Amino acid sequence: MPKKVRIALDAMGGDIGASVVIPGAAIFLNRHADTEFLLYGDNALIEAQLAAYPAVRAISRVIHTDVAVGMHEKPSQALRRGRKTSSMWLAIDAVKKGEADVAVSAGNTGALMAMARFNLRTLPGIDRPAIAATWPTMRGDSVVLDLGATIGGDAHHLTTLAIMGSAMARVLFDLERPTVGLLNIGVEEIKGGEEIREAAELLRAMELPQLEFIGFVEGDGIGKGAADVIVTEGFSGNIALKAAEGTARQISEFLRAALSRTWASKLGYLLARGAFKALKEKLDPNRSNGGVFLGLNGIVVKSHGGTDAEGFAYAVDVGYEMVRYDLLTKINQTLNRHGHTLASASAVQEAIS
Amino acid sequence: MPKKVRIALDAMGGDIGASVVIPGAAIFLNRHADTEFLLYGDNALIEAQLAAYPAVRAISRVIHTDVAVGMHEKPSQALRRGRKTSSMWLAIDAVKKGEADVAVSAGNTGALMAMARFNLRTLPGIDRPAIAATWPTMRGDSVVLDLGATIGGDAHHLTTLAIMGSAMARVLFDLERPTVGLLNIGVEEIKGGEEIREAAELLRAMELPQLEFIGFVEGDGIGKGAADVIVTEGFSGNIALKAAEGTARQISEFLRAALSRTWASKLGYLLARGAFKALKEKLDPNRSNGGVFLGLNGIVVKSHGGTDAEGFAYAVDVGYEMVRYDLLTKINQTLNRHGHTLASASAVQEAIS
Repeated sequence: MPKKVRIALDAMGGDIGASVVIPGAAIFLNRHADTEFLLYGDNALIEAQLAAYPAVRAISRVIHTDVAVGMHEKPSQALRRGRKTSSMWLAIDAVKKGEADVAVSAGNTGALMAMARFNLRTLPGIDRPAIAATWPTMRGDSVVLDLGATIGGDAHHLTTLAIMGSAMARVLFDLERPTVGLLNIGVEEIKGGEEIREAAELLRAMELPQLEFIGFVEGDGIGKGAADVIVTEGFSGNIALKAAEGTARQISEFLRAALSRTWASKLGYLLARGAFKALKEKLDPNRSNGGVFLGLNGIVVKSHGGTDAEGFAYAVDVGYEMVRYDLLTKINQTLNRHGHTLASASAVQEAIS
Repeated sequence: MPKKVRIALDAMGGDIGASVVIPGAAIFLNRHADTEFLLYGDNALIEAQLAAYPAVRAISRVIHTDVAVGMHEKPSQALRRGRKTSSMWLAIDAVKKGEADVAVSAGNTGALMAMARFNLRTLPGIDRPAIAATWPTMRGDSVVLDLGATIGGDAHHLTTLAIMGSAMARVLFDLERPTVGLLNIGVEEIKGGEEIREAAELLRAMELPQLEFIGFVEGDGIGKGAADVIVTEGFSGNIALKAAEGTARQISEFLRAALSRTWASKLGYLLARGAFKALKEKLDPNRSNGGVFLGLNGIVVKSHGGTDAEGFAYAVDVGYEMVRYDLLTKINQTLNRHGHTLASASAVQEAIS
């Protein structure tokens, strides 16, 4: 039996903290028994929840702290106030100290990224971290990154995103050589976008055995499942994700309103409720909960702040998989083997520009 | 009775040309009798269609040309081959020469923009043109721009987009002072994005009477109808639009599949078909067909290449409204009155950076 996966949980993170985190941990534990938890936060609140989940209590150690990062604190403020003391910092610090294999928090994204970056530092060869998540498509799931960790980025940055995203797809989807596409817009020969074209050339030239670069993908290609991994810088990645989420919410609102308008449509809804249930599951945001911070010396997973226990359990699942199937080793192997090509390509680019 | 609106149609544009353009013109004509058409393209193909639509024939003049721009030609290639000869160029040229008030084409977007820009030139005070379209939201429609005319752009560019987009919203939605939001991502204090923050400061400082600046809007705010006008540079605008379109298509596919799985769900679908019809109309891409090129000395409207006659008619509607309610005058008035503020703000920015 392999070593247990040690998971540090920020029990204060998210809109309601321990009352989602502990029940979520319990759901996760039913799926993955080979686990231990470190729980950071207010002892009283955590113990109150653990009373209802003895199985979680049996494999957990609680580390008390009074300090919790607020959902609307600025990253710099959270760092000043919560460094070395907050439940968020302590969960990340457990990864840094080798006491945990992964940290999971439903707290404030900006603060979590700032603390993770400050404490864990970026991997050798990586300048800037990224957030990656799975996106449900017409032919299964894809990994999309960067969802907003850093805005902009040159060809070198986009190439490291491709390497890290494909390592995540290998872990999550058990693929030998995931396909990778660069997000781009349809109109050719327009100003700007040089870094994307350069990244395409670089990825073609490198011929990495760990990924198959398939070229450019447009915005509507993500949902079609045009590639296992979709790479873009953080601004457009975040906009794409939220525009898609907004559209899904809008359509379900329209549908709900339309179906409740007449008796016939209400009856129709009742008869077809199996179909609507299937659709709802397909679109369930919980199913793609769990943003993975990539490019750091350690694994940190961000859950939606407003998720329920089921959704939080999915985020913990993602963290577990990343540890169990050696995400960091996979990323590092590629960077070590091909980092030289990347570094020299980067130098060439700088010389040209 | 006001002057007739003179509309130049590229009868060769789109995936099937005249067989969509002429029937589309006929649908449009039923809604707007105060119109004249100039039809550019292959005489034989156009006349064959006009035979079935005598009302269109009665108010049209056909100008023959053999040359049509291909849907996959590069803009530079289209310009070389089709300048002064293609149906697309001639329709734009009619606007340039004052023979038409607006040109509508379902042809190749890149070629249409290149030709429109080359022939019509940008308005005084505008460096780079934009493409704007309406986006169906939970509280009516919004104008979103730029959808891909130009990538990137400084605070000055974003501010001109706000001015042009709000002029379009005033025309289309009959609003005195449309609300305007700048598309941005949620995480604060991250690298990049300075131009968006500067644009926000500029828009606040200018206190334009023609628009009400409401601040930043995230990707999921578009569908919520957070503002009448959503402003962003062309790369993220294009990605947002296509990600949303892709999601809508994905959901209807899922729904169709789910509803045809069992007899109960099929019967349910039949009973609720009124509701589905309402949803379909709500999401009908035809309803938001018609991308308006903004920032040029003349109005050009781009229809989807793969649209049907109904959709093409919507694009002509949009062109008609822009002329009837003086889009260009509205844009120019704001630029003339506030161009000085913009120009000096731009100079200040350059001095600082």
